[in-house]
Amino acid sequence: MIQSNLFQYEQDTAWERVGDGVQRQLLGFDDKLMLVKVKFEKGSYGTLHSHAHSQVSYVESGVFEMTLGDTIKIISKGDGYYVPPYTVHGCVCLEEGMLVDAFSPARWDFTIADGKKYAL
Amino acid sequence: MIQSNLFQYEQDTAWERVGDGVQRQLLGFDDKLMLVKVKFEKGSYGTLHSHAHSQVSYVESGVFEMTLGDTIKIISKGDGYYVPPYTVHGCVCLEEGMLVDAFSPARWDFTIADGKKYAL
Repeated sequence: MIQSNLFQYEQDTAWERVGDGVQRQLLGFDDKLMLVKVKFEKGSYGTLHSHAHSQVSYVESGVFEMTLGDTIKIISKGDGYYVPPYTVHGCVCLEEGMLVDAFSPARWDFTIADGKKYAL
Repeated sequence: MIQSNLFQYEQDTAWERVGDGVQRQLLGFDDKLMLVKVKFEKGSYGTLHSHAHSQVSYVESGVFEMTLGDTIKIISKGDGYYVPPYTVHGCVCLEEGMLVDAFSPARWDFTIADGKKYAL
């Protein structure tokens, strides 16, 4: 099984720019599971998209307008959301903050973008 | 597929006492994935244990001495760790804080403890 290091340190891990005002940092992962931080500046957004992966996210800080399918809600620090596979979702950042996104299976597309290559 | 509600709000979700100075709150989940908050008071601990699930965790706040197999490290806000299946792990909370734990597959034992029952 392909897997990350056991420990991930904030200061040792690169942030990757993934959009205007949006940065991503990988946490741990293996074939089945991946955890990712995504930092948003106020006014930045996560474009509407969908994927086969299950996703559960935690609002670590900030305020977001979150779209999940036909539902739009305002969520803030301490809240969370679940994205069923293939469900269109996206967000607008209303106050600067960070989401912590969990995926199953892992998002190998993120690791390739990170400059490392893993088998699918 | 069994799944949580789409949104989980901090203020609407119960905290369950799971140890001395340790509380847990469920975030979203489905069969493959579950995200969970675990709050620790200073001096409390997560007993050494292991499980078949893959686990990736994020240190949302606080400082922890974390044991993963034969490795012991001090980790703090912003750091993370990966627990391979069946790896013994546990922590001591050195400064009050919270971990956000992702599991694959879901920890149905947590939902049963939460007063709801789901099929395995």
